[in-house]
Amino acid sequence: MGTVGASAARVLQEQEELLSDRAGRRLELSAVSARDRNRDRGVNLDGVRWFDDPVDMARSGDLDVIVELVGGSDGIARAVSETALQSGKHLVTANKALLAVHGNSLARLAEASGVGLGYEAAVAGAIPIIDVLQEGLSANPFRAIYGILNGTCNYILSRMRSDGLEFSDVVSDAQRLGYAEADPSVDVDGTDTAHKLALLTALGFGCHVDFSGVYVEGIRNVTQLDIRFAEELGFRIKLLGITRRDGDEVEQRVHPCLVPISAAIANVDGATNAVVAEGAYSGSIVLEGAGAGGAPTASAVVSDLVRLARNAARPVFGSPSERLETLKPRDMTRHRGDYYIRLMVLDRPGVIADVAAILRDEDVSMRSMLQHGRAPGEKVPIVLTTHETIEANMMRALHRIDGLDPVLEPSRMIRIEAL
Amino acid sequence: MGTVGASAARVLQEQEELLSDRAGRRLELSAVSARDRNRDRGVNLDGVRWFDDPVDMARSGDLDVIVELVGGSDGIARAVSETALQSGKHLVTANKALLAVHGNSLARLAEASGVGLGYEAAVAGAIPIIDVLQEGLSANPFRAIYGILNGTCNYILSRMRSDGLEFSDVVSDAQRLGYAEADPSVDVDGTDTAHKLALLTALGFGCHVDFSGVYVEGIRNVTQLDIRFAEELGFRIKLLGITRRDGDEVEQRVHPCLVPISAAIANVDGATNAVVAEGAYSGSIVLEGAGAGGAPTASAVVSDLVRLARNAARPVFGSPSERLETLKPRDMTRHRGDYYIRLMVLDRPGVIADVAAILRDEDVSMRSMLQHGRAPGEKVPIVLTTHETIEANMMRALHRIDGLDPVLEPSRMIRIEAL
Repeated sequence: MGTVGASAARVLQEQEELLSDRAGRRLELSAVSARDRNRDRGVNLDGVRWFDDPVDMARSGDLDVIVELVGGSDGIARAVSETALQSGKHLVTANKALLAVHGNSLARLAEASGVGLGYEAAVAGAIPIIDVLQEGLSANPFRAIYGILNGTCNYILSRMRSDGLEFSDVVSDAQRLGYAEADPSVDVDGTDTAHKLALLTALGFGCHVDFSGVYVEGIRNVTQLDIRFAEELGFRIKLLGITRRDGDEVEQRVHPCLVPISAAIANVDGATNAVVAEGAYSGSIVLEGAGAGGAPTASAVVSDLVRLARNAARPVFGSPSERLETLKPRDMTRHRGDYYIRLMVLDRPGVIADVAAILRDEDVSMRSMLQHGRAPGEKVPIVLTTHETIEANMMRALHRIDGLDPVLEPSRMIRIEAL
Repeated sequence: MGTVGASAARVLQEQEELLSDRAGRRLELSAVSARDRNRDRGVNLDGVRWFDDPVDMARSGDLDVIVELVGGSDGIARAVSETALQSGKHLVTANKALLAVHGNSLARLAEASGVGLGYEAAVAGAIPIIDVLQEGLSANPFRAIYGILNGTCNYILSRMRSDGLEFSDVVSDAQRLGYAEADPSVDVDGTDTAHKLALLTALGFGCHVDFSGVYVEGIRNVTQLDIRFAEELGFRIKLLGITRRDGDEVEQRVHPCLVPISAAIANVDGATNAVVAEGAYSGSIVLEGAGAGGAPTASAVVSDLVRLARNAARPVFGSPSERLETLKPRDMTRHRGDYYIRLMVLDRPGVIADVAAILRDEDVSMRSMLQHGRAPGEKVPIVLTTHETIEANMMRALHRIDGLDPVLEPSRMIRIEAL
């Protein structure tokens, strides 16, 4: 009964008639559990049973569905979820961390008990991407799924661009406005995006959840300078989660990307989320909407309840657990793509020639080079973009470039996504 | 077994294993019907029964689902659909005209027989908007649903803007390229969009289908001049279908709109479709994707088959037929909005004063006025935009303006949508 729980309870009460028409039966809020009984949550809890211990609630005999909104991959959230499934109750959860880490065993538990496990709220808030992959696009093998899956990061990057601020300034502001947590690391370091991506991978490709196979890089190193250079080159910087299947391998990665300004996803600003599913027959389907917040997340939670009330069972990750594949994580050193490189160098003759020689030696083909103005003897930025390159080559080249005498700071590399 | 039918058959054959994992049972193409047995459709039909009469197929005892891809609101399509439902078979159809006209009775037929009626393919091609309204956003009462629902119109308007061509030139080109039919009237006059909108209204608002209540205006009158003026004012011209509920009334309308360039939907170009659902809790959810074509439409058809194979029954229009409301169509004279007006006038003193006086008398408040250059004694365009106005007032004003002596052509009015 935190923000999302109270919102979900309100939806159940406000839309009682509509929901029972759609579900074919009444949805009744029977019991709740939270630490503080006395807080005013704006919900009428008369006649609703109160459990001090949520695990007791999860094993209580007369409930059909348990909604877990505690959060965290272990502890109470895990205990509640496992108990609910073991005692034959459907589970609805907004908990991406839990599913990213324990999704495989929870899916097996749900199957063993013949119950459903709904997690629409765990990925991209109100955007019904889980449902779209499970139902509306179920005819399609997916080639790739990617998107802006963390509203905090997208808000920060959007504000950095629109207001010309650095990361740390926007974070403080975002914290004050409630767009970022007191400790923003799960968001800004990309972990939250990686949790969600691991679920999209499992569902989209019919494979086991492999959170540890996700390559993760956050947005702390994105600077104003890079945002402006990107803009000049026709790109926006976005934190994307990208998953792509290739045979029995899967490349799951979360990192800042340069995306062309013409791409739909480049123009998704603020706390909004967006997901793109590339189906073999459907082509690219883009979904945009609110990625967080009480009411949007409650929309997802209650929609899962409606589906469960209809007895519309479906495999948790698209196929029954025993039919899920185990895909090999593709190492990032084998990633192929274009790259944006920014160097801070001492402006003196020969630097660019040295850099160019290293790139040539490492088989990296340059697409463009930008150096604004001249400032002999001072520190200046140089920006390079490459043609398609193997990441291992890029990394070797950067290591050597960083060792050059006139290169004064570690180089900054951001991957370019064609989309 | 036309384009979509052959594509759907190919999906069933190519994805046999994937589909049976997702559906929990095998989907088998058992029988087909088409006029010409001998055409090569790129599908292996060995062992598939052939029916010369599709109505015979629809009543054949050993089939579970009939897929109707004939098209048209009556004739064979209707006979096949009614026969299938009456004989206890699920029906999947891409036929918006059929459902827009006979949807209410077909929904009752399906309920009486206890079977499903899937029509994901009838609206916006591969975009799973039906599923999203039925499932992923089922917690929400909807305030409004709108979108670009006809790829032909969007292609024509996009080409007019990008290539500076007039409507008639782009139509011939679109016909040559297969983006427009030999007789493009169902598309360009807005009927196709209206068919789809009537279905979104019924499903979104839980009311009976009321195709005759849709106000419809096509794109034949959109000119290059209006596209350029719109651009100058910060707008794009799009043919939108818009449905909005207000108490027990509904406003369903299809017409060209000026949409702000900053709106997501303004940047959806070419044959792509886009739909926006405004849920009470979810907020605006935007979906974009391919609105037509064999494979995208087959994606929708086969996804419906997967759902039916899972026995996931759901009411055709969101709620059971006897619970559907009958909403009153709101007359367009009561529409409120901003307006774009273009006049062709004789450039002489006093014209604008006369126009302004009429607008004042009819309670229409001007927001902006544009007249480029001067050409005394010649015909020049004048463009006005208004603040929010009641359409009846706007219409009275335009009638009087058109009667002014220096107004040389009927005025052109395009509604502005804030979105």
